[in-house]
Amino acid sequence: MAGVCPQARIIDLTHGIPRHDVRAGGLTLRNSLGFVPAGVHLAIVDPTVGGAGEHARRAVALSVAGGRRTLVGPDNGLLWLAAQRFGGVEQAVDIGRSPRRLEPVSASFHGRDIFAPVAGALAGGEALTALGDPIAPAELRQLALPSAVPRDGGLLVHVLMIDRFGNAILDASHEQLAGAGLRLGGVLTIALGGGNAGDVRRGRYVTTFADVAPGELLLYEDAQQMAALAVNRGSAADRLGLAPDSELLLRVA
Amino acid sequence: MAGVCPQARIIDLTHGIPRHDVRAGGLTLRNSLGFVPAGVHLAIVDPTVGGAGEHARRAVALSVAGGRRTLVGPDNGLLWLAAQRFGGVEQAVDIGRSPRRLEPVSASFHGRDIFAPVAGALAGGEALTALGDPIAPAELRQLALPSAVPRDGGLLVHVLMIDRFGNAILDASHEQLAGAGLRLGGVLTIALGGGNAGDVRRGRYVTTFADVAPGELLLYEDAQQMAALAVNRGSAADRLGLAPDSELLLRVA
Amino acid sequence: MAGVCPQARIIDLTHGIPRHDVRAGGLTLRNSLGFVPAGVHLAIVDPTVGGAGEHARRAVALSVAGGRRTLVGPDNGLLWLAAQRFGGVEQAVDIGRSPRRLEPVSASFHGRDIFAPVAGALAGGEALTALGDPIAPAELRQLALPSAVPRDGGLLVHVLMIDRFGNAILDASHEQLAGAGLRLGGVLTIALGGGNAGDVRRGRYVTTFADVAPGELLLYEDAQQMAALAVNRGSAADRLGLAPDSELLLRVA
Repeated sequence: MAGVCPQARIIDLTHGIPRHDVRAGGLTLRNSLGFVPAGVHLAIVDPTVGGAGEHARRAVALSVAGGRRTLVGPDNGLLWLAAQRFGGVEQAVDIGRSPRRLEPVSASFHGRDIFAPVAGALAGGEALTALGDPIAPAELRQLALPSAVPRDGGLLVHVLMIDRFGNAILDASHEQLAGAGLRLGGVLTIALGGGNAGDVRRGRYVTTFADVAPGELLLYEDAQQMAALAVNRGSAADRLGLAPDSELLLRVA
Repeated sequence: MAGVCPQARIIDLTHGIPRHDVRAGGLTLRNSLGFVPAGVHLAIVDPTVGGAGEHARRAVALSVAGGRRTLVGPDNGLLWLAAQRFGGVEQAVDIGRSPRRLEPVSASFHGRDIFAPVAGALAGGEALTALGDPIAPAELRQLALPSAVPRDGGLLVHVLMIDRFGNAILDASHEQLAGAGLRLGGVLTIALGGGNAGDVRRGRYVTTFADVAPGELLLYEDAQQMAALAVNRGSAADRLGLAPDSELLLRVA
Repeated sequence: MAGVCPQARIIDLTHGIPRHDVRAGGLTLRNSLGFVPAGVHLAIVDPTVGGAGEHARRAVALSVAGGRRTLVGPDNGLLWLAAQRFGGVEQAVDIGRSPRRLEPVSASFHGRDIFAPVAGALAGGEALTALGDPIAPAELRQLALPSAVPRDGGLLVHVLMIDRFGNAILDASHEQLAGAGLRLGGVLTIALGGGNAGDVRRGRYVTTFADVAPGELLLYEDAQQMAALAVNRGSAADRLGLAPDSELLLRVA
């Protein structure tokens, strides 16, 4: 990118997305971009590397928000949440055969051979439509997220992602928690497996980690205003055996 | 920061400080800044995340060295050693309610909502005193370090921090080692636990790792002119079971 | 470097080379530089840290490719492959006593005290010959790589390096594989230890990871057009117990 567009400022947002975790990448991108100057945003997470055949996915570039931001990456849902946050996709192109790609395109390193040179060209002011073949926005792969639902007087929630500290980000909003009777400062029960299997833990719904003792479970609203489960100075994922899509039933204790 | 002050050059010094280790952060900051162009230096290490109540700490910005350097971070001692190295604090402000903070300020991500935007504003030339409420420098939290002391004909030293290679940085200067009779090239004994418990190892006081065989213990002066214990191609922390504040009695063998 | 040459753009290529692995560093540098704008390229990997005596190695700066690129680093073979790729060394200097070094030079941190300030000076336009003492290019340490050889109707290959995913990069070209009868799409046997010991696995020679099922072994051409062994969504190094210089006999199944 520095070669294609020497004047571009390049900001690394993260290299810490778990391998193959498209959903964690998509959520992180959506949550981060509001704090990043508008520009060309390149993101790559692939469920498989250099997929072909049934695993193939297109390489795409999308304009959103009146053209002030452009997203570049694989068409596997990774860009979807960010595009929605900024008002949806306006224009989309398939850049797999972009005139700006590096030849020969390797099977396993599209970041170098397709995504980066196209992102550099966009940063240098080249038109999106000159860099690939048009795609109807409706044909882009979307990213489905689970949804918290009321159950048995509580709230059935799902783990969206695990962050690098072992905190489990949930699909519940503050309003949904309130709807199940959960109040800041209160104690709750957390039934693993969604409540069928029996293992139940106790935690507190608080504002911040320091509101509980080291080693205690807490439910809190994270910096992206998403509900999350954590252990003060520990890992909720390890403690509770959580992974993306794990189900939990939260109830007032 | 790139949004607040687009012309700022941002240099990442490290993301490798052990979690919650304020002292390792403070020492690393002090040791590094002399090699970094003067500017706004933002550092964050919290013993707990987003603390409130008894764990609360102020967010501060400090000018040092005739105003040529500004330090931004938590008031938990992290900035103290660096401020002292550059002549002490001249002015200090509490930036927890800075006009430059991002609203709503999250409970757990002050780096994004307070520290970074204030650092950006400082880089853009805004006055320290316009960005927060004045604090008397004497009220800032200091960082106490252990001190090596002569004992039983040797030198009782403490581990200040463990670096990422497992080397143990000590609180002893070359002069203190010489005062205990330790000379470059000589062999020494290292009594774990400060000498009371019995486990004693042997090592050599040398200039560099290659002066001993792979697997051997060495005492050397590190690149910050601090004494350190290491194992050539190994980890002294693992070998000796060391952690910050571990005591060791060093004596001529 | 930012202090010596404020206008320099600094690009981090990687901090992920395995500790002490000069060959992995040299291969990575060679493979990467063709995609990086011409400039001053600083690389450091030491087999031992701050070596002295028999382990000593010079600190050098080299011009290649008509002077458009300059390489800075230890004279331990690390820079050799990259220099060859760009046409060989034109001029070389020993920078161990460069007028641009930081005094006092520490025993264990030449990156800070020698390499970085000299690289900064070169970026700022200072002449190579003013920054050190001339060395004949023929005296520079070279880096020897193993070579695949035909054996027993197959191809005896060696592991050049293991990447961070556990993929094993081999010393075989597509042409050498073809010479042993291996064809894209075909099945092959992989005899560990070069074929003497008995343990033989099966894999497929394919274009990309997605051509085999998760957990299957594959032989493919990587993004640098080098043959590599991998496990789809796994680690070939762990599965086969591979390390740099491991021997394998590849044959048509």
